[in-house]
Amino acid sequence: MASSGKCLGKGSSPPGPVSNGRIRLYSMRFCPFAQRTRLVLHAKGVKHDTVNINLKDKPDWFLKKNPFGLVPVLETPGGQVIYESPITCDYLDEVYPEKKLLPADPFEKAQQKMLLEHFSKVSPYFYRIPTMERNGEDTSKLEEELKEKLLNLNESLAGRKTKFFGGDSITMIDYMIWPWFERMETFGLKHCMDGAPDLKAWTERMLQDPTVKTIMFDTETHKAFYNSYKEGKPDYDYGL
Amino acid sequence: MASSGKCLGKGSSPPGPVSNGRIRLYSMRFCPFAQRTRLVLHAKGVKHDTVNINLKDKPDWFLKKNPFGLVPVLETPGGQVIYESPITCDYLDEVYPEKKLLPADPFEKAQQKMLLEHFSKVSPYFYRIPTMERNGEDTSKLEEELKEKLLNLNESLAGRKTKFFGGDSITMIDYMIWPWFERMETFGLKHCMDGAPDLKAWTERMLQDPTVKTIMFDTETHKAFYNSYKEGKPDYDYGL
Repeated sequence: MASSGKCLGKGSSPPGPVSNGRIRLYSMRFCPFAQRTRLVLHAKGVKHDTVNINLKDKPDWFLKKNPFGLVPVLETPGGQVIYESPITCDYLDEVYPEKKLLPADPFEKAQQKMLLEHFSKVSPYFYRIPTMERNGEDTSKLEEELKEKLLNLNESLAGRKTKFFGGDSITMIDYMIWPWFERMETFGLKHCMDGAPDLKAWTERMLQDPTVKTIMFDTETHKAFYNSYKEGKPDYDYGL
Repeated sequence: MASSGKCLGKGSSPPGPVSNGRIRLYSMRFCPFAQRTRLVLHAKGVKHDTVNINLKDKPDWFLKKNPFGLVPVLETPGGQVIYESPITCDYLDEVYPEKKLLPADPFEKAQQKMLLEHFSKVSPYFYRIPTMERNGEDTSKLEEELKEKLLNLNESLAGRKTKFFGGDSITMIDYMIWPWFERMETFGLKHCMDGAPDLKAWTERMLQDPTVKTIMFDTETHKAFYNSYKEGKPDYDYGL
């Protein structure tokens, strides 16, 4: 049984059925979307196995599980398959009701989903800006846009007057947006938070969270993976 | 109090607070995304007012409610605002628990969300193909892609062996994808369902649903609006 080991690629044998009482995560160690699910699994203390996937050379059996070919994917002992990061996280929060991460109040839940929708317009900048930089293009316009979007996030948090985006303790929305902040320095975008003091203070608080601490990679490791990715030869097993 | 009346544009007075015991929908009569929420409001029998918005000339007060500037938007008597069609529908299903449209089972719910994610790759074709046609471009490649995606939907339904996408009665997912099927003929795309008999049978079943019947427009009306839209002068109040 593969468990957070080296990634499986095309031609690999599919892993066997998932053991009773556990759930399986198909992941890629440096994928920010899969990290959302890894954070939720850890925060809720869910017993799980991890199978890492070679996303550049995907196994056929993996494409059958998720036709989008993306991680994260969850699989249950009964063979049920769940994909798309917000769907996997909501599923886990419902099936494992201990330490609920989503608020019970329908409006508060809707607020988290709306914030996630706003954030879905932020995360693409983390790839667009470095790609333009590599091509020697001017990124100043995109950086201004990113700064404005981060400022909106800052104001959203400042307006709430709470330590985290869903209250004074960490909830689902914090884990959903965290992976990109962990990579801010790796992507050379840390200066885009200069006008966002509340957001900066939030990242410092997040770094104190035991789950974030356990699941995260340091910037040096992220940079090593990212360099291999930029060269077209992503080292999915870096550090193993 | 505006109630499903003529659309409000830039310079209009904002409507007053929402009456107690009701909810308000900001809508546009021909918007397929807003139709999702209209279907859910009707299916659940939720007392509501409707304020239609001129999407080409949006009121400033509307942009303050939803920074994305899109419909649907819900507003409660307490001034809470909810936007993005799936978020509004999930919210309504939680707040008004009579006649639940989402399944209680976490995996079945996840299945509906995954199907919706697949469908989010289908709906853009309804605009791309007609736009290319207007520009005199060859649409055959895009039509093949759409046919393949509709075939996948067909197989998903055939594999379930149920009358609707969530079982033998209508549930949330049916209402979420219906608005585009209602417009299939308007967009000249009906032939793309030729290889999808189960999907065709589903559309016939949907047309028998009392909520779908009440909320829908006939193809002639859709075409009249669509023609005005194509000419750059969308007649949001057509037929009023």
